Amino acid sequence: MSKPKFSKMLYGGDYNPEQWPREIWEEDMRLFNKAHINSATINVFSWAKLQPSEEAYDFSELDAIMERLAKEDMEIVLATSTAALPAWMCRKYPDVTRVDFEGRKHKFGHRHNHCPNSPSFKRFASELVHRLAERYEGHPNLKVWHISNEYSGDCYCENCEQAFRLWVKDKYKTIEAVNEAWNMTFWGHTLYDFDDIVAPNYLGDGIHDTAAAFAGLSVDYHRFNSDSLLNNFKMERDIIRLYDKETPTTTNLMGTYKGLDYFKWAKEMDIVSWDNYPSYNTPISHTAMNHDLMRGLKDGQSFMLMEQTPSQQNWQPYNALKRPGKMRVQSYQSIAHGADTIQFFQLRRSKGGVEKFHGAVIEHVGHEHTRVFKEVTELGKELESLEDKLIGTKTNARIGIIFDWDNYWALEYTSGPTVDLKYVDQIQRYYDACYASQLPVDMIKTDSNFENYDIIIAPVLYMVKEGISEKLEAFVNKGGQFITTFMSGIVDESDNVHLGGYPGPLKNLLGIWVEEIDALAPGSCNTIKTNGLLLQEEEYKCTMLCDIIHTEKAEVVGEYVSDFYKGKPVMTKNTFGKGEAWYIGTVPDQAVLNDLIDKLAKSKEIKGFRNLPSGIEITSRENSDTIFYFVMNHTSDPVTLNNKFGNAKDLLSGQEWSESINLSPYDVKIYEVSK
Amino acid sequence: MSKPKFSKMLYGGDYNPEQWPREIWEEDMRLFNKAHINSATINVFSWAKLQPSEEAYDFSELDAIMERLAKEDMEIVLATSTAALPAWMCRKYPDVTRVDFEGRKHKFGHRHNHCPNSPSFKRFASELVHRLAERYEGHPNLKVWHISNEYSGDCYCENCEQAFRLWVKDKYKTIEAVNEAWNMTFWGHTLYDFDDIVAPNYLGDGIHDTAAAFAGLSVDYHRFNSDSLLNNFKMERDIIRLYDKETPTTTNLMGTYKGLDYFKWAKEMDIVSWDNYPSYNTPISHTAMNHDLMRGLKDGQSFMLMEQTPSQQNWQPYNALKRPGKMRVQSYQSIAHGADTIQFFQLRRSKGGVEKFHGAVIEHVGHEHTRVFKEVTELGKELESLEDKLIGTKTNARIGIIFDWDNYWALEYTSGPTVDLKYVDQIQRYYDACYASQLPVDMIKTDSNFENYDIIIAPVLYMVKEGISEKLEAFVNKGGQFITTFMSGIVDESDNVHLGGYPGPLKNLLGIWVEEIDALAPGSCNTIKTNGLLLQEEEYKCTMLCDIIHTEKAEVVGEYVSDFYKGKPVMTKNTFGKGEAWYIGTVPDQAVLNDLIDKLAKSKEIKGFRNLPSGIEITSRENSDTIFYFVMNHTSDPVTLNNKFGNAKDLLSGQEWSESINLSPYDVKIYEVSK
Amino acid sequence: MSKPKFSKMLYGGDYNPEQWPREIWEEDMRLFNKAHINSATINVFSWAKLQPSEEAYDFSELDAIMERLAKEDMEIVLATSTAALPAWMCRKYPDVTRVDFEGRKHKFGHRHNHCPNSPSFKRFASELVHRLAERYEGHPNLKVWHISNEYSGDCYCENCEQAFRLWVKDKYKTIEAVNEAWNMTFWGHTLYDFDDIVAPNYLGDGIHDTAAAFAGLSVDYHRFNSDSLLNNFKMERDIIRLYDKETPTTTNLMGTYKGLDYFKWAKEMDIVSWDNYPSYNTPISHTAMNHDLMRGLKDGQSFMLMEQTPSQQNWQPYNALKRPGKMRVQSYQSIAHGADTIQFFQLRRSKGGVEKFHGAVIEHVGHEHTRVFKEVTELGKELESLEDKLIGTKTNARIGIIFDWDNYWALEYTSGPTVDLKYVDQIQRYYDACYASQLPVDMIKTDSNFENYDIIIAPVLYMVKEGISEKLEAFVNKGGQFITTFMSGIVDESDNVHLGGYPGPLKNLLGIWVEEIDALAPGSCNTIKTNGLLLQEEEYKCTMLCDIIHTEKAEVVGEYVSDFYKGKPVMTKNTFGKGEAWYIGTVPDQAVLNDLIDKLAKSKEIKGFRNLPSGIEITSRENSDTIFYFVMNHTSDPVTLNNKFGNAKDLLSGQEWSESINLSPYDVKIYEVSK
Repeated sequence: MSKPKFSKMLYGGDYNPEQWPREIWEEDMRLFNKAHINSATINVFSWAKLQPSEEAYDFSELDAIMERLAKEDMEIVLATSTAALPAWMCRKYPDVTRVDFEGRKHKFGHRHNHCPNSPSFKRFASELVHRLAERYEGHPNLKVWHISNEYSGDCYCENCEQAFRLWVKDKYKTIEAVNEAWNMTFWGHTLYDFDDIVAPNYLGDGIHDTAAAFAGLSVDYHRFNSDSLLNNFKMERDIIRLYDKETPTTTNLMGTYKGLDYFKWAKEMDIVSWDNYPSYNTPISHTAMNHDLMRGLKDGQSFMLMEQTPSQQNWQPYNALKRPGKMRVQSYQSIAHGADTIQFFQLRRSKGGVEKFHGAVIEHVGHEHTRVFKEVTELGKELESLEDKLIGTKTNARIGIIFDWDNYWALEYTSGPTVDLKYVDQIQRYYDACYASQLPVDMIKTDSNFENYDIIIAPVLYMVKEGISEKLEAFVNKGGQFITTFMSGIVDESDNVHLGGYPGPLKNLLGIWVEEIDALAPGSCNTIKTNGLLLQEEEYKCTMLCDIIHTEKAEVVGEYVSDFYKGKPVMTKNTFGKGEAWYIGTVPDQAVLNDLIDKLAKSKEIKGFRNLPSGIEITSRENSDTIFYFVMNHTSDPVTLNNKFGNAKDLLSGQEWSESINLSPYDVKIYEVSK
Repeated sequence: MSKPKFSKMLYGGDYNPEQWPREIWEEDMRLFNKAHINSATINVFSWAKLQPSEEAYDFSELDAIMERLAKEDMEIVLATSTAALPAWMCRKYPDVTRVDFEGRKHKFGHRHNHCPNSPSFKRFASELVHRLAERYEGHPNLKVWHISNEYSGDCYCENCEQAFRLWVKDKYKTIEAVNEAWNMTFWGHTLYDFDDIVAPNYLGDGIHDTAAAFAGLSVDYHRFNSDSLLNNFKMERDIIRLYDKETPTTTNLMGTYKGLDYFKWAKEMDIVSWDNYPSYNTPISHTAMNHDLMRGLKDGQSFMLMEQTPSQQNWQPYNALKRPGKMRVQSYQSIAHGADTIQFFQLRRSKGGVEKFHGAVIEHVGHEHTRVFKEVTELGKELESLEDKLIGTKTNARIGIIFDWDNYWALEYTSGPTVDLKYVDQIQRYYDACYASQLPVDMIKTDSNFENYDIIIAPVLYMVKEGISEKLEAFVNKGGQFITTFMSGIVDESDNVHLGGYPGPLKNLLGIWVEEIDALAPGSCNTIKTNGLLLQEEEYKCTMLCDIIHTEKAEVVGEYVSDFYKGKPVMTKNTFGKGEAWYIGTVPDQAVLNDLIDKLAKSKEIKGFRNLPSGIEITSRENSDTIFYFVMNHTSDPVTLNNKFGNAKDLLSGQEWSESINLSPYDVKIYEVSK
Repeated sequence: MSKPKFSKMLYGGDYNPEQWPREIWEEDMRLFNKAHINSATINVFSWAKLQPSEEAYDFSELDAIMERLAKEDMEIVLATSTAALPAWMCRKYPDVTRVDFEGRKHKFGHRHNHCPNSPSFKRFASELVHRLAERYEGHPNLKVWHISNEYSGDCYCENCEQAFRLWVKDKYKTIEAVNEAWNMTFWGHTLYDFDDIVAPNYLGDGIHDTAAAFAGLSVDYHRFNSDSLLNNFKMERDIIRLYDKETPTTTNLMGTYKGLDYFKWAKEMDIVSWDNYPSYNTPISHTAMNHDLMRGLKDGQSFMLMEQTPSQQNWQPYNALKRPGKMRVQSYQSIAHGADTIQFFQLRRSKGGVEKFHGAVIEHVGHEHTRVFKEVTELGKELESLEDKLIGTKTNARIGIIFDWDNYWALEYTSGPTVDLKYVDQIQRYYDACYASQLPVDMIKTDSNFENYDIIIAPVLYMVKEGISEKLEAFVNKGGQFITTFMSGIVDESDNVHLGGYPGPLKNLLGIWVEEIDALAPGSCNTIKTNGLLLQEEEYKCTMLCDIIHTEKAEVVGEYVSDFYKGKPVMTKNTFGKGEAWYIGTVPDQAVLNDLIDKLAKSKEIKGFRNLPSGIEITSRENSDTIFYFVMNHTSDPVTLNNKFGNAKDLLSGQEWSESINLSPYDVKIYEVSK
């Protein structure tokens, strides 16, 4: 498998010249050059063009596009085009389309909606990719293979149901093991034959996206569906590898998208790429977390920012323009968190179809005299000047936050104790606590190497699979700091409860027993008192869920102030070997988490940037001898900071030392500091 | 038919040992004994276990469960297990599953979802019940047959549609009579053949749960569906009776659940049982009304509390813990209103499936050292000490509130005058008026014996079937007090308007004519003035609907203060024979209703408890020589009351006389007073 | 084609005596006479009665109804009865029912739901209309043919899908042209065969009513569906014309109902009729706009008010009574805006079915002693006294507002820039600006004769079809005032963007280029400053969308006060030939629009009534020598106005001159002023 390492930052984006006459292509080249664009992602939705009918293939237009781009020496990200089905295929081979959660068979329409277990889809996709790989392998400008596009969704057709039965059989071997795993004796659902298994959509045991009669079954269906789509990816990748041993493969992911287990996917991808579409009101720290998650998928390997809009979105409810400078600072935020490319969707705005109001480098007006084009050009110039300086540099994080798709699925399927509990929200709270002190974070999986970290945080670690508690114990035993929360340690891999008291296999490490979990009504809260030990203030609000905790070995660091569990522990610390394991039994004010994380980080001498003005972010990447500090102003106001980087030089402006750093609105500086 | 009369209060609940290995059974027995649990409901969802395939039956595990329970001398509530279909049955006989309101055919999944008119379901269920009844009749510990579970829902498959046609034909005989009943000439829907009848789901004349083009048709479909499920119940009951002439039968009901006409059902049941699941914010008086309704189903016969949670629910949006003492006071509230058993769902918490976070006597931790287990044990001890003292005692109510499922269905199908009108809400307002003075209430049906009551209240008696107005006239004529409201007397049994002016057949009794019904916008109100006659204050708000009334013989007791009907009557009283008939033409402030009911109760010398602090309830049961007063504190604060019961003894604490009664939070006292 | 010109105002409404026995008919006649009712709309939903089975027809009851009405000399509006399918037809010919947007095949139920491309429907409807027309042509009391009823909805069955393919082929000729029109290369949707075309419901490229992957396709499906239903209308009309050359035809429309292109429909109708159902909180100006739109459909020809309720609705959420006088003033508002008839739904209230609480002249009480009957009678008397004085008089409007269904559909399908953008809302804002000064308005189509107007307003003229910009340029060139807004000039007939910069083909006329369109979050706003030129105040809020405009030739009349486009133009004026073209690049405070329109109207010496109290409307109709001013008080308070009509006489009261006009609540006066 090839290792991606770009010689320069790719700067470009999606390009669909098939929609336009040739004279437009020429104008495009002129404008690309003007904007310092050096790459194009092509062929994303061209299947119908490449294969006009079951029998016929026609690569002439794609040849021409490749040739024209090569003439400009553009780097090419070549998609396999399998993300949108040709109309004739849907008509003649209806197995290629999906049956949805409500049991409706779909027809030709939209995209990203092939049935992953359709024999016809596999046959046609495989044939197409054979031809593409054979034809274009070795093309001098071909830089990355982009397989399909934004894999997503699920299917409940009979082919999938049958494939699911085989998947289940392969996993559990016997029907007795299935009954045990899904606890099918409950409600008399005992199965006697694999053919009794029904896909859990609305017509079976499903209810909706976050409710099912048997979460174990529905979680397995999520795994199966994620695997099914991954098999589609692997099928195409393996075909490409028959012809092309070198060029890296990717597919563009979507941050915390729920449907696919991206950690499992990333193992099969040479390079991670993703599409970043913050809304006007998306918190900056959420985008930061997304970037860190994408970087974490391949253990810190830098990623491609495959898509962002130069200015405006079209499918959000309120599609605000990106203010002047905002696209630039968002681009540098991507780089700061690990991106080695900056690519736009899209280079030229479509004249029709659902995305015709989606931002583009070349807008409907068609010329270069737009604010957006100018900003793209300015950024292109800067990125060009950086050459390969930042490419492949790493983030040095000593805090790991566990993100786990199995857990995500299972937690959100729980019926009770409260409908307000959402996985990503809870992860975000702990990420934000790190972000408050600008502490670098790795988003990690449960089978990551915990020894790389000083602090590991696992919010709502509801599902604790085999071996995880031992691994965490070993981590703490050697001196690690571990933090977890309410609704942790509850179920095993199959969503069956770990009997013997919550938090199940984490009890030993945490030194507590959680007897009850109280759900608070919306607007209600309790108060927690931290005994003057931990935090500056003494009392804080807490909401949503309140664990009633018995300490067994742990020390109480916070207790409830009201209700019948007044005086009972709410936050505990257990000294375990050389380390400590913390338990937060509720959703406290953010300040509590900020203080706790900050205190632990200081104890571990983790460098951060504390007390920055709101909207200021400082993030770093480094190589063996240099650290690059990205200082970013995400606000529309000018901000002055004390200089924290001595006489380092700003790579972008070339400016050196000064006592204070003046950031204009949406400004960015990159300080290069020797180690 | 057998008469249920328990020799002691059943205390126990749902028990599903099939999910657990035998060593757990032994631990269960130890814990049951410890908690003074004396009964178990078993076999609720065991069909798939009992019948692993079409050909095979296996009762060995059930035999073992029965035997093990019998060894502990536990009373057994034996379910027939037909409430959840085996997977093989759904696969091989798809007619057993339902077609839903939107026309979707369901597959294997969930429970409570067999098609009531499925030939296969009837064949298999009947075969199973034959075997169960034959096998277990005469078992010394078998106390109650529990048929199926929480019958509910509806089906719109072709078998149901065909059965509906026969039901319609049986009811109406001719297609002309059907056209007349459903007023099918309207919108040109005239039918010429019974085969023209289409089940009124979304694909036919239905719109949603409370909207349909032809309410008469949809109300009949409700009746048919309720009858269809009742036929399933009767089929099982009749099979049981072939073998077992004695043991009472029940099925667990669900309070004001809309789908089934419980009054009609209760006639077929030996004993009523029901499942009480108040939410954290359910008003106490709503639970009280539910209990009274369940007691009313069989004319005051005491009922089984078949299910309640020891502490936490799981399927509500916010599943708060029951505060210490709350489960106890809720249990005594059940008994106070007529329960002769206290049973939990569930005895041991499941480790998987959708209810794994539902409260249980034995929680996931598995031992007895939990708050919940201790509270269950304390209550068990108390109930044991009461022996059969309260069993079969009666409520002595002189106020009857009419609750009528036909009316419920028809009223909520009306298109106009306002979407805010809900049947149970309006019933609750009048129940609350009685509750405000702690006046005992019977929830009655239209064919109850009205002579048992001094006051009869019929809020929104929209549908007045044949003979009802005459019955009410006779009641008032002899001295009864009758209260009804806006939207009464409007339609006949078939939802056709009683012509000649509202309130139709009630006009004579009420002495009024309602010319118009104004619907008020949300947030709007009128004011009513009561002329100093009836109430303490002179002016009150009223909302939602305002009848414009002409008195014909009635006296005006309240009039509107504003809008174009200012000065027109809003509340009237008609002296009719020796009694009075009151009409409330709007939704007034609750105080108006409280005052009116209190005044009438006083005039009839009905004993109540007035001016109690909020959250204090006093309810009584009695036998021929003794009254038992249940004094309950539903609040989290201590409360002191004046002693109202002389030197009576509190059955629970053994405490006698004192000048004041001190109730700790959620406290209960039962005073035994000789008549 | 006949020209409708009534000799007197029709006063009556829907009459369904089929539901009632003959003695009720006699009572109806007595009451109609009493109420001065002179017409009845009959046979609207009688198909099942007229054709009891596939083979049998029975006109005897309809004959009797016609005869009985004729005996009273009532004018008859005779419906063709095809708006509700007989049950037998749905059962035996399922192609007559629809498949809905979600792909569900419907069965017998409701009305207005035949499949427009069903061969069986066409065959049966055609046969029925042949018989009706043959039988009743020449009937002396037959005044209008009323074809079907409230055509609406859409179908996605295979017959429609197949018909759509033919429609598309007929329009575009080649599949290449289809691909071009719908921009199918986007997302790889290129079609190679007309059979690849899939109806755009939820199973295809549709998403919901205002979202689709390919707006061009979905807009064409709207056109096709509108045409399909129009073909049903034309089929019936043409059959009628085989027998009856004279009697005008109509079908009742529904104001701004989205589904059908009423301008296209009106061309096929002899007379427009419509159903006016304001809710308790519908703005008066919205009803006024609806009337003007209905009058505009046939270029100012007066219309029939086919339905209104005498008092109460039943299908609105809150069905308030019409206050005393309100029905009268709403009736005169209809006449003032162009109605030549006042007809009610319904004459007698149904006793069953979904509309049984819908208001009627004869209510359930059945007699004439009701407020509603009295008000109907009073109005009947008045209308009778007016004889034919107002019939056929015209509105003299010099302002035209363009309303365009293609635009309506396309605009609301846009994905971005904001979900808050709704077509009718934006039209209403400009209508309200005219209404604020009581300036007469014509609602016009893009192919209306613009020369009839001094001012043309085209809010959100998103779709600019071929020839429109030239037509507008010619209009302004000759001295016209033209106003348009943001989101104008964006797409062509096929929803493909006009390239080269917004507002596309309107750039030349407006003298601007819109570079960007910013969407504001809910609750956000910008401020605009009008430089003291245009308006009284200097600064106003604006919301929703903010265009960033470059003036090319235009003059800036308003600029932004904040955000990064501070100081940039928001409102511009371009002098073009002898006229001016205004562009409003945002949604400003209503005051801005009111002031602008008023200023332009004054400059054109358009007469209005300024500074009237809120709720007062003055509208006029005229003939060659007289103007009739309708002065209406839509409020529940008395109002005094300065006399504006010299010594004119009020036609209703006969009152002449006075210095002030005193209007009681909901009062109306009609002043007859010689030209």
